[in-house]
Amino acid sequence: MPKATPPSDRTARLRFLLEPESVAIIGASDDPSRIGGRPLRYLLNEGFEGAVYPVNPNRDTVQGKKAFPTITDVPEAVDCAVISVPAKIVPETLEACAASGAKSAIIFSSGFAEMGDEGVAKQSELSAISERTGIRVVGPNCLGLLSFRSRFFPTFSSSGDAGYPDAGPLAIVSQSGAYGTHVYAVARSWGLGVSHVITTGNECDVDVAECISWMADDENVKVIAAYAEGVKDGDALIGAFEKARANKKPIVFMKVGRSEEGAAAAASHTASLAGSDEIYDAVFRQFGVHRASTTEELLDVAYACTGSIHPTSKRIGLITLSGGVGAQMADHAKLAGLDVAPMPDAAQAKLKALLPFASALNPVDTTAHFFNDMNLVRENFAIMLEEGRYDIAVAFFTMVAASPYLIDDLIAELEGIRARFPDRLLFLSLLGPPEVVQRYRDAGYLTYEDPCRAIDAAAAMVTFGKSFAESARPIHKEQGAKTHAVPSRPLSEWASRELMADTGVPLVEAVFATSADQAAEAYAKFNAPVAVKISAPDITHKTEIGGVVLNIEMADEARRAYEDLMSRAKGSTPDGVIVSPMISGGIECILGVQVDPVFGPTIMFGLGGVFVEVFNDVSFRLAPVTPDEALRMIEETKGAALLRGARGKPPSDMRALAEAIVALSEFAARTEGVQSIDLNPFVVMSEGQGAMALDCLIVAKDQPEDG
Amino acid sequence: MPKATPPSDRTARLRFLLEPESVAIIGASDDPSRIGGRPLRYLLNEGFEGAVYPVNPNRDTVQGKKAFPTITDVPEAVDCAVISVPAKIVPETLEACAASGAKSAIIFSSGFAEMGDEGVAKQSELSAISERTGIRVVGPNCLGLLSFRSRFFPTFSSSGDAGYPDAGPLAIVSQSGAYGTHVYAVARSWGLGVSHVITTGNECDVDVAECISWMADDENVKVIAAYAEGVKDGDALIGAFEKARANKKPIVFMKVGRSEEGAAAAASHTASLAGSDEIYDAVFRQFGVHRASTTEELLDVAYACTGSIHPTSKRIGLITLSGGVGAQMADHAKLAGLDVAPMPDAAQAKLKALLPFASALNPVDTTAHFFNDMNLVRENFAIMLEEGRYDIAVAFFTMVAASPYLIDDLIAELEGIRARFPDRLLFLSLLGPPEVVQRYRDAGYLTYEDPCRAIDAAAAMVTFGKSFAESARPIHKEQGAKTHAVPSRPLSEWASRELMADTGVPLVEAVFATSADQAAEAYAKFNAPVAVKISAPDITHKTEIGGVVLNIEMADEARRAYEDLMSRAKGSTPDGVIVSPMISGGIECILGVQVDPVFGPTIMFGLGGVFVEVFNDVSFRLAPVTPDEALRMIEETKGAALLRGARGKPPSDMRALAEAIVALSEFAARTEGVQSIDLNPFVVMSEGQGAMALDCLIVAKDQPEDG
Repeated sequence: MPKATPPSDRTARLRFLLEPESVAIIGASDDPSRIGGRPLRYLLNEGFEGAVYPVNPNRDTVQGKKAFPTITDVPEAVDCAVISVPAKIVPETLEACAASGAKSAIIFSSGFAEMGDEGVAKQSELSAISERTGIRVVGPNCLGLLSFRSRFFPTFSSSGDAGYPDAGPLAIVSQSGAYGTHVYAVARSWGLGVSHVITTGNECDVDVAECISWMADDENVKVIAAYAEGVKDGDALIGAFEKARANKKPIVFMKVGRSEEGAAAAASHTASLAGSDEIYDAVFRQFGVHRASTTEELLDVAYACTGSIHPTSKRIGLITLSGGVGAQMADHAKLAGLDVAPMPDAAQAKLKALLPFASALNPVDTTAHFFNDMNLVRENFAIMLEEGRYDIAVAFFTMVAASPYLIDDLIAELEGIRARFPDRLLFLSLLGPPEVVQRYRDAGYLTYEDPCRAIDAAAAMVTFGKSFAESARPIHKEQGAKTHAVPSRPLSEWASRELMADTGVPLVEAVFATSADQAAEAYAKFNAPVAVKISAPDITHKTEIGGVVLNIEMADEARRAYEDLMSRAKGSTPDGVIVSPMISGGIECILGVQVDPVFGPTIMFGLGGVFVEVFNDVSFRLAPVTPDEALRMIEETKGAALLRGARGKPPSDMRALAEAIVALSEFAARTEGVQSIDLNPFVVMSEGQGAMALDCLIVAKDQPEDG
Repeated sequence: MPKATPPSDRTARLRFLLEPESVAIIGASDDPSRIGGRPLRYLLNEGFEGAVYPVNPNRDTVQGKKAFPTITDVPEAVDCAVISVPAKIVPETLEACAASGAKSAIIFSSGFAEMGDEGVAKQSELSAISERTGIRVVGPNCLGLLSFRSRFFPTFSSSGDAGYPDAGPLAIVSQSGAYGTHVYAVARSWGLGVSHVITTGNECDVDVAECISWMADDENVKVIAAYAEGVKDGDALIGAFEKARANKKPIVFMKVGRSEEGAAAAASHTASLAGSDEIYDAVFRQFGVHRASTTEELLDVAYACTGSIHPTSKRIGLITLSGGVGAQMADHAKLAGLDVAPMPDAAQAKLKALLPFASALNPVDTTAHFFNDMNLVRENFAIMLEEGRYDIAVAFFTMVAASPYLIDDLIAELEGIRARFPDRLLFLSLLGPPEVVQRYRDAGYLTYEDPCRAIDAAAAMVTFGKSFAESARPIHKEQGAKTHAVPSRPLSEWASRELMADTGVPLVEAVFATSADQAAEAYAKFNAPVAVKISAPDITHKTEIGGVVLNIEMADEARRAYEDLMSRAKGSTPDGVIVSPMISGGIECILGVQVDPVFGPTIMFGLGGVFVEVFNDVSFRLAPVTPDEALRMIEETKGAALLRGARGKPPSDMRALAEAIVALSEFAARTEGVQSIDLNPFVVMSEGQGAMALDCLIVAKDQPEDG
């Protein structure tokens, strides 16, 4: 459906939702604990400076404010209307709001797309009103939003029952209202300040992607936390991710539905959304978004982002006053993919001079002498950062840091370190009351109770750092312009091969034969053992009908193979046979393309055999991918060890493999009408020897694959 | 070295360390913040009721108490002497303590085994004094201990700077003093009560195993948390684990050194301790000990144990007021190995009647209606537990549970549920101030902030429940009595086979031949294709010298194979050749035995090929194992999918495989002189078709394997 207003103008109008100067509350209640009462209470008590107009046809005043019978009676066209009325009168209410000149609306009411077909139809009325009139709408079936700098809290959530604190650097957007406000409440209990909480609910208009895009442009936002069960518009999400990355704004994303049980629960909760979970996973990796599995992980990472330091190296220095915790941190850092690089010998010698019997390798152990000589902290820290050149450091001080005997001296030492190394990512693991912890935060350190959580967050910062550092990334959407097409009919292997010609995707040499004589000639051309395969649009599983003859070493055998294959293919419509030289050696992989309903063409890589079948050891990306991304796809699989040369084999031709992945992804991205592509097996030879598909099958859209 | 006192008497004397009636502090300081001052301060201020004797030759009083020049001057033989003097005079001080009749001592001083050879020698003096005189010793190089019911806090840790709370159900033992007190401090900040913290340091006498054993007998202890970098006496640790399991006392264990970096840090921290990390892992699994990777995990699980409910089923019911969090919990429960079983249809119908549009499948979603109708909580919970028959339930209430508008009603409903289902493991995920959270704990619920952490803890409870339910487990040590021996010399394959005869370990049929004629006769006997292999004590890698000839189908070929093999084995001392039928089909596995320096014989299982070489997909246990344990070993590997019949293959003969593992483990346990055994390949045929080793190699102790 065409949009009445160009998207960028529409997004600019989110201002009316997040920073309004006038607000009407339709269905305002005098009871400050009720759904229509809470938002009014928050508007009156939490410092909102704009005009507030309660709308209630049954009362003269609501919570002490003059009430208006309808939105039409409100004396000005408001920036935002909060709609808290029964579902059945929501469409007419929204229409009236738009007619009165309201720029935006927030609809709490449930009873729309989450309730099945009838609800979907009702919701599309709301979308239509928004599109026709330009009124921007959050909801329906949402908990509203919190906009801290504007002190604008149009929500019926109990999250403000104890008041709302000052604005901070974390922006939260969530399809789920309960989850969005839960994340806010946890962040608040951690002392982590929030700029926005937007709960988008059923998304009849404003969606998670558009909110991310808005937040990515807000200079007061340092990190964006998002929650979705799924999105409808993959391009919009990718566009938002790209903008955030360009602006160096990290995104932490909670997407449920990893398991069947979780996906079922998510589907029953919202209007069903398509798109495979593993593709979401791939999108997050590709665009540098951190996917969190738990709320703690989400906020651990988000909190670390508030330091705005995103290193590109994995070198981590560990300082501990417990050798045991040092070992535990080293284990955990390794598990998190960080590099617990040893200190240079000279630096170790310096530390040994300070504390002869403590370990100075990394972790550096201050031991209990910490208590007696606070200089040890400064010396240890400074030597590690100066000479060990670690981009990240985690120091474990536990409750000792809260000891009244030590705290002033310790903070003084740490402030000196922070000032001297402003670009390092510095974490403390502390245990103490909030006011003590705050003193260390004020000294410029990120603090965590558990050192392992600090380490996990550090690893996430490196992932952001590496993603941000790839500055010249192509814009995904522009790359995906369609310049070619495949015909909308079943394709034989030969037809598939022809479509792949000149794409840069390496295929095994082959000759097409449509007679026994041609098959024999083809054999003669290769003058080596060949395979002969049936090529037919209606046979996709050739081996099942005996459609492949291997190891042919004589022209007559090739001739006979042709005849045999043709007779086995009776009932199908073969276009001929394919004659190719037998290939031995190499490592069997699988390359594939699938077109995702939300995100479009995706590319898959994995090793064959048990790797894919037992371990599901495959990696995905949206097509097209860059060569670096292709290498990352390969490295992500466990099977990569085999390609690197495990089991005493020579290393494989990774470059040829990566080039093939890039070429296939580019073909998938520019070609209209593809449903899926399988290159299986795709054989990777030893370094310098290349790689090639031994089989190639393109399935066109709307052509169900058989079997 | 023989012990002067029988172990059980010795352990009984731990009472003098943990519940003394009189204490001397040698090196007592007047400064309450110093190492010799803190313990005295704690003894004087924290409610200790026994006699306290400061020992300090330079002062008449210390912290206001009369001081004694030496331990000999103290007017009674004390139960416990706390020794805080320089390392060089520790041995004479300990000797003096023992001579004065002190029953036990705690040595803070460092400068012993952690400092290299000289320190090791000095420490062995302490061990000798303890063994000779019977004085029980904690330390040296430790932070002392905390014994809450006795209000006895002989430690110089700052953990008591703000006072010590009342005793609770968690007992902590740790080799690392800093880590032990850190765990205590975190537990305390969570409101989790502690019974003991014992830091064992260098363990010149009392070790972690003996403390666990003591704690397992203490009826006030509900759960034991332990930390070790490694242990010296594997049997003692296993004995302690067995006792704890028999007493249904869960143990949560932090053992560092999973990674090379972590192991290096651990080794530099304490006297080096042998034993492979993967064997510790196996021991923990085998004896039902939960291995924790982080302090939070350690305490999450320990806290859940305080409910003393250890279900044996994995069925978990999830209740949520956010559909999004419901999906997240379902994802996480699946990941944790729990069963998010759907509600019975009838029960779903009942819930649907209460709330037509919310999901009632599991998770059950109360939605925001929760606010309006508190009955929903009771009804949902009761129907889930009654009709869904879940042994575990987790309810997500977030900050809503802390709302002053709701809390009283909610707690009343929840108390009713707790009373009605006393045997279910019930968790709440809440967000609120500590006093609010405490009200829900007092109502009989385990509370966590993050629902995923509650779910992980629930999964650990099931593992404990299953372990405790196996009541009739054999005692490991009794099973391991040595009744057989292998000779201490290199063994040929045939010699290895002969030693394995009648052990129940299935080996491929074989005939030994010491001449070409015998080889031909052997072929004739099988009347099928055979393999002929060289058998020589000094050839362990047969294929490298071409020592195997396959697919022999004629008597003459067998004869020639004998001659060829003998000539290829020139320079070695073959005892003959082994003739076996060729075996095709089946799945190749590896069975192995290794004798661990700490724990003795261990057994290993894995699938061959990439499974073991790329994925390191193997499982270990101490030998011997029960059939159930053998099945668990198999199920633990990812490759088990292949044995169960992945990739369209028929299921394999798991029973035969498990029987072989049991038989091999029993052989390993009862046979003296084994260093390692390899059955590789060990082929598992289809269900009912058995399994057998195609190759068998025993390496005797002190016989280094070649190559």
